[in-house]
Amino acid sequence: MDSWVDGQPADALSLKDRGLAYGDGLFETIAVKGGQPLLLDRHLSRLADGCSRLAITADHALIRSELLAYAKALGEGVLKLILTRGDGLRGYAPDPSAQARRILQGSPPAAYPAVHGEQGVRLFPCATRLSRQPLLAGLKHLNRLEQVIARAEWQDTDHAEGLMLDQAGRVIEGVFSNLFLVREGVLITADLKRCGVAGVMRAELLFQAKSLGIPTQITDISLDQLQWADEVFVCNSVYGVWPVRAFAALSWPVGPLTRKLQTIARALLDA
Amino acid sequence: MDSWVDGQPADALSLKDRGLAYGDGLFETIAVKGGQPLLLDRHLSRLADGCSRLAITADHALIRSELLAYAKALGEGVLKLILTRGDGLRGYAPDPSAQARRILQGSPPAAYPAVHGEQGVRLFPCATRLSRQPLLAGLKHLNRLEQVIARAEWQDTDHAEGLMLDQAGRVIEGVFSNLFLVREGVLITADLKRCGVAGVMRAELLFQAKSLGIPTQITDISLDQLQWADEVFVCNSVYGVWPVRAFAALSWPVGPLTRKLQTIARALLDA
Repeated sequence: MDSWVDGQPADALSLKDRGLAYGDGLFETIAVKGGQPLLLDRHLSRLADGCSRLAITADHALIRSELLAYAKALGEGVLKLILTRGDGLRGYAPDPSAQARRILQGSPPAAYPAVHGEQGVRLFPCATRLSRQPLLAGLKHLNRLEQVIARAEWQDTDHAEGLMLDQAGRVIEGVFSNLFLVREGVLITADLKRCGVAGVMRAELLFQAKSLGIPTQITDISLDQLQWADEVFVCNSVYGVWPVRAFAALSWPVGPLTRKLQTIARALLDA
Repeated sequence: MDSWVDGQPADALSLKDRGLAYGDGLFETIAVKGGQPLLLDRHLSRLADGCSRLAITADHALIRSELLAYAKALGEGVLKLILTRGDGLRGYAPDPSAQARRILQGSPPAAYPAVHGEQGVRLFPCATRLSRQPLLAGLKHLNRLEQVIARAEWQDTDHAEGLMLDQAGRVIEGVFSNLFLVREGVLITADLKRCGVAGVMRAELLFQAKSLGIPTQITDISLDQLQWADEVFVCNSVYGVWPVRAFAALSWPVGPLTRKLQTIARALLDA
């Protein structure tokens, strides 16, 4: 369907937009089912956190109502919201009175092979390392050249995702997913205080695990720890959970906690 | 004057552009005088290097001819070229067959106070640190949130520029300038192998200094070294050279090598 810019159907954007000039904005990629944007509160909460940290002024009630209306019209698929700081003049200085620009784009449901979820995936070992930037860590901002470079490292279809380390060699996340491991019954994911995107499905699975009494840990993860994991999986808010079967020379079975959380994710995304 | 997109007058951009989605592109900001784009070869050389490193396919002969034609029409002012990887579909993977999109924008001559060049400027001590990313270091790419955040740290007009350090506390550059210091007759600027933008005026001044037999050094610079500098200045390809008089509690006189290079820069920009 048509894209919307600030609530109006549009297929083009002002050339002065700071999203283009500097990547000065945020985005959310939201699964839509039966006309509903899924995990909407978590998406909106991350967006609001991003706006607060980047000092982007936006009407969050209006964003919510537009997302609901757009999802209703889309029906099934994936909705992408890009929120930029709006038009700029020359120079980096943000205009404190600027209002954010809202861009909504719809696409058909993601067409990942079902085998990724059923049998698990192999992760490509990305050489591209994530840089340390606490001021941007966790945010789904528009400065994504590291992901572009990392995703260009492999073209084969044997690898459904790539694993990214930070500059110190810590295990952080996939190129478009977060990563979890399970060790002796504890669900572990990387601390994203230095880099990485704090995914909506990651937050939801941590919440669900806690509700089920499963111990969780957010911490620095070394490649050694990854090697000794009992289970490994990746997740995002579009495909849910993919078990990880292999990464470089390492391999893991598809474990019971992975299957349990995959079932929960599937239920959330089939809502 | 009107902007051009791929050689045609336009005021809007495809919503699918990867420059917007991911900051997947490069830019150049070029002074135009008497219908000529100044330091054009250096701008084109940096752009070509960026395209090569990011694997962006572009017609560089066409870019040159468009820049010349646009500058001729603009007459006097500042020309901004944004080169993006063109339209994308969903996901980070670049389309290897994509052709770069060329966006040209013109604006009136920069209106910086003449006193900046005459008497020198004070640098704001930015708390925002540049992250280490060798894969992007030196490039003038579109992922500029660090500069946006740094530039938002001060609103007063007492500070004409801000000084940015890297995560390890090394002195790197200004928010929109490169920085040089002079110590015992040697012209010194930061090594940009980990972060920073390799400015066109920086390259030109290094070249000019060598031609004049002035010793130059590209190296890591500590705050201690900055403190003991005999002269400090910042530069870019629009304003030329501004002597730096003060940074935090430090201060410097406007020195003779600064004045010599400022005169050279002025001649280049008055061409």
